[in-house]
Amino acid sequence: MDVRDEVIELCQAARAAARAIATAPTPVKNACLADAATRLTTQRAQLVAVNREDVDRGRAAGLSGALLDRLTLTESRIDAMARGVEEVAQLPDPVGETIARWRRPNGLEIAQVRIPLGVVGIIYESRPNVTADAGALCLKAGNAVVLKGGSEALATNRAIARSFTEAAVAAGLPAAVLQLIPTADRVAVQTLLRQSAYIDVIVPRGGESLIRAITESSSIPVIQHYAGICHTYVDEHADLAMAERICFNAKVQRPGVCNAMETMLVHAAVAERFLPPMLGRLRDAGVEIRGCERTRAIAPDSRAATEADWRTEYLDLILSVKVVDSLGAAIDFVNTYGTGHSDAIVTDHYDHARRFLAEVDSAAVYVNASTRFTDGYEFGFGAEVGISTNRLHARGPMGLRELTTYKYVIQGSGQIRA
Amino acid sequence: MDVRDEVIELCQAARAAARAIATAPTPVKNACLADAATRLTTQRAQLVAVNREDVDRGRAAGLSGALLDRLTLTESRIDAMARGVEEVAQLPDPVGETIARWRRPNGLEIAQVRIPLGVVGIIYESRPNVTADAGALCLKAGNAVVLKGGSEALATNRAIARSFTEAAVAAGLPAAVLQLIPTADRVAVQTLLRQSAYIDVIVPRGGESLIRAITESSSIPVIQHYAGICHTYVDEHADLAMAERICFNAKVQRPGVCNAMETMLVHAAVAERFLPPMLGRLRDAGVEIRGCERTRAIAPDSRAATEADWRTEYLDLILSVKVVDSLGAAIDFVNTYGTGHSDAIVTDHYDHARRFLAEVDSAAVYVNASTRFTDGYEFGFGAEVGISTNRLHARGPMGLRELTTYKYVIQGSGQIRA
Repeated sequence: MDVRDEVIELCQAARAAARAIATAPTPVKNACLADAATRLTTQRAQLVAVNREDVDRGRAAGLSGALLDRLTLTESRIDAMARGVEEVAQLPDPVGETIARWRRPNGLEIAQVRIPLGVVGIIYESRPNVTADAGALCLKAGNAVVLKGGSEALATNRAIARSFTEAAVAAGLPAAVLQLIPTADRVAVQTLLRQSAYIDVIVPRGGESLIRAITESSSIPVIQHYAGICHTYVDEHADLAMAERICFNAKVQRPGVCNAMETMLVHAAVAERFLPPMLGRLRDAGVEIRGCERTRAIAPDSRAATEADWRTEYLDLILSVKVVDSLGAAIDFVNTYGTGHSDAIVTDHYDHARRFLAEVDSAAVYVNASTRFTDGYEFGFGAEVGISTNRLHARGPMGLRELTTYKYVIQGSGQIRA
Repeated sequence: MDVRDEVIELCQAARAAARAIATAPTPVKNACLADAATRLTTQRAQLVAVNREDVDRGRAAGLSGALLDRLTLTESRIDAMARGVEEVAQLPDPVGETIARWRRPNGLEIAQVRIPLGVVGIIYESRPNVTADAGALCLKAGNAVVLKGGSEALATNRAIARSFTEAAVAAGLPAAVLQLIPTADRVAVQTLLRQSAYIDVIVPRGGESLIRAITESSSIPVIQHYAGICHTYVDEHADLAMAERICFNAKVQRPGVCNAMETMLVHAAVAERFLPPMLGRLRDAGVEIRGCERTRAIAPDSRAATEADWRTEYLDLILSVKVVDSLGAAIDFVNTYGTGHSDAIVTDHYDHARRFLAEVDSAAVYVNASTRFTDGYEFGFGAEVGISTNRLHARGPMGLRELTTYKYVIQGSGQIRA
């Protein structure tokens, strides 16, 4: 059988399995996940051995140290992965929730009820823990899942997926509720992205180029997780000590993630007081500053920011800084150069806070807090499959609920339409 | 300026206008709509005259009588259109609604708040009333809208759109909150469908081939309104008199719409009692019956249904009929041949009702009511932009709420992430 036929058959099996898991009782799904977690920990040693083969192949193929690190599973990483799966088992089941319910004058009772999306396709790069994390979330939300991981992690991903399929069968679910595309062939992804008859949504996890390529060739809706060019605006009415703590945290605590600050905006009235200590502290932490002209007038040793800087997600210890003359200018700047991810204002001014919250068009808008909180765990969702930069369906952190859709359940007593 | 540049410029203007209307107070949006309605009625005579030119051109170009009828505006149709716009003005504003609000252990207060989608593109065929209906809904939900109507209605659509843009400007909104692509050039649609930087969602209204073509070439998310192959299953425990009323209504009351019944399933235990009077009544109403073998054993004068019949949305006085042996067989049939639109069971059996509701995977599932109720007005939404067959974002009737998205508003007191 060629790769194309193999992928199509796998997608058809996923669709059939989706019907079974969509109506599976919560305890069955939970048992499946708990069992998968147990299998991961008891097969820890074999998993490490399989993973070593992937890592050795990767090293021989010249993968970078960072990629090899992301690919590597240790016993403690396996335990953390298994704990993550157990935690998902313990989250409330989103399926069956009544979102709204009302009665029409003709007596029809209409309920909007949460149901699984169906079949979710996850396409991701080298981290093998996504196999377990995303797999567990999809299953808990009652979906079948088709996984396509990076080719360098194929043996590891296969072993992790096997824990889930064995657990599914033991729980009385079809094995095809979780499937891994078992090939590194590029035709596999291209085929997957055309199976809109069997796959309901694609969630790519990886760099922007991967996501753009997938979006371009997919006939299935894609939930994008694009760049986060996040801003913090230090208002003229800010508590400057608080602003310093928040900006430092947003930039430095973990610079390589999408909710880290990339651009700091400072009101002109406080720039001379705020910038010197702030930039000093950032520089001490190894942050390179790229400033506008007015920033450089205050901090002459900063590099000049270019138009390209305002549009760059550094994911690194680099910060662009701009002095602005008003709240309105800050809001315009954020709406022009931001990516609609997470943006914050630091202010003690009631109306400025309200205006920023209302007018900044981002998935998460903050007053007096670090943008680093945009995260499924920090929001209290218990887990996340990613942070959507889409406007449709899911925006911001995607938890279990964002892996569902709804249907209308209408109960009547013989109503007909006049 | 060539068509491509013209469309891009128009989309850019829409994006800019979207920011203004997104934060416009409810009374401003309502005043704009009420004023547009007034302009439509006071300019009734001019509108009829302009429309007559479109109709004359269409007749000369050989449009069918049905198309010419859909294209034609009379004074009473204009009044109905204006009343529709006024009714939208009176609906509650979905923007600003707090969907959920919670407090995290660290004191962060997170609110999920409803906001407009942004810029909505509507692509539709000959009916000029869509210009007013869809335009009013988009504006009320705080969106800018780009309309691309059928070329045969261009002059009429222009005149209707002008009522809205004049009303927008009078209300202090940018004229570009509602724009019509002022050309019949096909390049215009192709260009529109690539403007994902400026347009957030495309809602096509028209036949399946139009929607498929748009979905195929759009880089912007499309909310599809595909076919409704709706079923009614008459259970062995059905009140047969009620079943007859419901099936008759679902097939005959308005056969040309997507929520009309196309296939009737009947349990074998009641087929001999139910089918002769039911089919007799349907035939008296002009319905052609296409039956399975067992149906034809009971009603030998029916035409034989083929596999293609089960997959056809007739939109006409034609009904396919199949006798099934069990509830499970009925559910499987609906999930296999249906389009996930609207499906009903008629039964007095508690568990059968519950199983059908749980296991049929359609946007609207009914017990003891006609599928014809799947409609934004009948659901109590006050209006609808269409009925989505998507699973993502909006499923079933789309009202104002389905033209919105949300953002997270997070209020803190200096929280940073550990």
